[in-house]
Amino acid sequence: MSELALEAEKFDAADELAPLRDRFVLDGVVYLDGNSLGALPAVVPDRVADVVRRQWGELRIRSWDESGWWTAPERIGDRIAPLVGAAPGQIVVGDSTSVNVFKALVAAVRMADEAGEGRSEILVDATTFPTDGYLASSAARLTGHTLCAVTPAEVPAALSERTAAVLLNHVDYRTGRLHDLPGLTAAIHAAGALAVWDLCHSAGALPVGLDEHGVDLAVGCTYKYLNGGPGSPAYLYVRQELQSRFDSPLPGWNSHTDPFGMSPSYAPAPGALRGRVGTPDILSMLALEAALEVWDGVSVAAVRAKSLALTDFFLRCVRAYTEPGRVESVTPERHEERGSQVALRCPDAGAVMKRLISRGVVGDFRHPDVLRFGFTPLYVGFAETERAARILAEELA
Amino acid sequence: MSELALEAEKFDAADELAPLRDRFVLDGVVYLDGNSLGALPAVVPDRVADVVRRQWGELRIRSWDESGWWTAPERIGDRIAPLVGAAPGQIVVGDSTSVNVFKALVAAVRMADEAGEGRSEILVDATTFPTDGYLASSAARLTGHTLCAVTPAEVPAALSERTAAVLLNHVDYRTGRLHDLPGLTAAIHAAGALAVWDLCHSAGALPVGLDEHGVDLAVGCTYKYLNGGPGSPAYLYVRQELQSRFDSPLPGWNSHTDPFGMSPSYAPAPGALRGRVGTPDILSMLALEAALEVWDGVSVAAVRAKSLALTDFFLRCVRAYTEPGRVESVTPERHEERGSQVALRCPDAGAVMKRLISRGVVGDFRHPDVLRFGFTPLYVGFAETERAARILAEELA
Repeated sequence: MSELALEAEKFDAADELAPLRDRFVLDGVVYLDGNSLGALPAVVPDRVADVVRRQWGELRIRSWDESGWWTAPERIGDRIAPLVGAAPGQIVVGDSTSVNVFKALVAAVRMADEAGEGRSEILVDATTFPTDGYLASSAARLTGHTLCAVTPAEVPAALSERTAAVLLNHVDYRTGRLHDLPGLTAAIHAAGALAVWDLCHSAGALPVGLDEHGVDLAVGCTYKYLNGGPGSPAYLYVRQELQSRFDSPLPGWNSHTDPFGMSPSYAPAPGALRGRVGTPDILSMLALEAALEVWDGVSVAAVRAKSLALTDFFLRCVRAYTEPGRVESVTPERHEERGSQVALRCPDAGAVMKRLISRGVVGDFRHPDVLRFGFTPLYVGFAETERAARILAEELA
Repeated sequence: MSELALEAEKFDAADELAPLRDRFVLDGVVYLDGNSLGALPAVVPDRVADVVRRQWGELRIRSWDESGWWTAPERIGDRIAPLVGAAPGQIVVGDSTSVNVFKALVAAVRMADEAGEGRSEILVDATTFPTDGYLASSAARLTGHTLCAVTPAEVPAALSERTAAVLLNHVDYRTGRLHDLPGLTAAIHAAGALAVWDLCHSAGALPVGLDEHGVDLAVGCTYKYLNGGPGSPAYLYVRQELQSRFDSPLPGWNSHTDPFGMSPSYAPAPGALRGRVGTPDILSMLALEAALEVWDGVSVAAVRAKSLALTDFFLRCVRAYTEPGRVESVTPERHEERGSQVALRCPDAGAVMKRLISRGVVGDFRHPDVLRFGFTPLYVGFAETERAARILAEELA
């Protein structure tokens, strides 16, 4: 057994989060793709079966009240809240991340418009997941703003009295770079603009501190580090003080103050509810609610500590096992700049990932040359991390 | 046994759709609320269990390809297509009805704008389900159009060279009135405008004929007569000839022509795919796909014939059993004006419905004074229809 393998054993033995692995359905595969689709929490199948067979099949329409379907978006929002550093009453779950980006950004520029300072520009993270840029472009077009794409590092210099809102991604989906949410939010506020953050690649992997850092609006998906299942509904955070000014571009009956009054004129509900739109997709939503139970008693700080230990260790193993120069890490070395993934560049990344997967090490490939390995501290251990690096080195040799 | 009860027995014996009831999970309840939430199709629980346990739990990320997750929105759209009279390739499933109303209406006014005729007005059905009106108002505000609410009967007179698009509901959710889709669509086209139809209360209950009548865009939910489950994803129809001009206000990565190219600039996919936005909610979506199997071998014409027979019979029973003047039907007598529900007005409707439900007859109450009874021909029979009318009469007495 190699020295690193022995070290991995020690790490695993000392890992206080190790028992959480039993809360998931896993097999012999080294699953390093939880940053794309989280593994199945063990509690989910029976819960979903109950939702289908009893709540839908037996109670039918009564479940909107009796099984708590109607209030699920805000109830599950409150369950996510502590994971992203938010007090209750500020998050609703529903729709896709894309749709929530649209709501958040249009609402943000409307708040800026309200101030009457003629702020005409939206800044968008040029390195963000593409859908955010497409929706930002649509929001700009529909609200008559100009859109300017800049890297997060360029944001401070790009901010001006013209800036209405800035849409940024907390962790770069390709490189795994963690951006400075507190610092950038403060800079955006100093310029008098609103900060909208996309938390897809950070929520559930590291402390976000939405309330602490005064983030205005935020969105995120729930199927990565929150393990909600394929395409599980996204969420929208609206800071409490801004909720009364949240003017949604998607005002559906679910955000009406009296949804069953069936009034032809729209009157928005108070609070985070204002972010709801149409009828929530209950099966996906209640699967997510069950999935969030794996967080019971888990501290995000402990998750972050293990995440950094795992990615540090993976990088060490890769360096120890792989011929120098064969791959290049594009993931920052500094902890304060690293999310919960390692991205390695090599020209034949697509072919290498296929071979890795066939050998039971599942990461993913991002066009054109990136091998992406996500580390979900709730279920990934050190021994399998060492094994992944070893098999990777064999396939790169 | 009363004469009507004997007649019901004969109807049931002659009902060629009666065996379809076995495709659903039902109990002793008379379920007349399928126009709100369809009953559970028997095939769904095992299918959902497979999606959760095997597709998500074992195959995990591989299921996007191997289990056909990625292509589900258009595949399931093609499964719905024959039920609404559409050729394949024109429907995608995803998001809520509300969100699809927004996409359809903004896209419609953009198509009208393209023609350069300065059409500045959107007409919206003043009697439609409220969410359609709220979203139409948002679409008008964001695209700089004026919004004018008129009843469907007033549409022909309200149409002018200013009209860009008209959003109408096929069946009134309160009264059950069926509007003249062919005639109104033709009138809208004659005025040079685009017709957008909401099919929530007609799809699965009666022939719609989208292609035949030249409807431009349509949306609908799938949890009523299509039995897709609580909050199951909605669908969007874009007529083939218009697809290349469909300019979505919600351009997400799922509608990009090369979604995994991760390009920062948006280039829409060809075809109905253009209506997709973000990652589809797979659990809800594949439950719907399973639910649609109950339609195998079922003709929509036969469903319509039985629907009219059921509502005719229910009205006859109510009249026979109930003291004259106690309730007033607001559902049209004429078949060509009737959807698949009966709405009865009485001042104490809320209290009456509560008592009915406690006696195992489930309809619903719509503010302020409407008792609503939906008839899903796939699983509702004549004997239980007679029983519902009898118990209703007892509760009204």
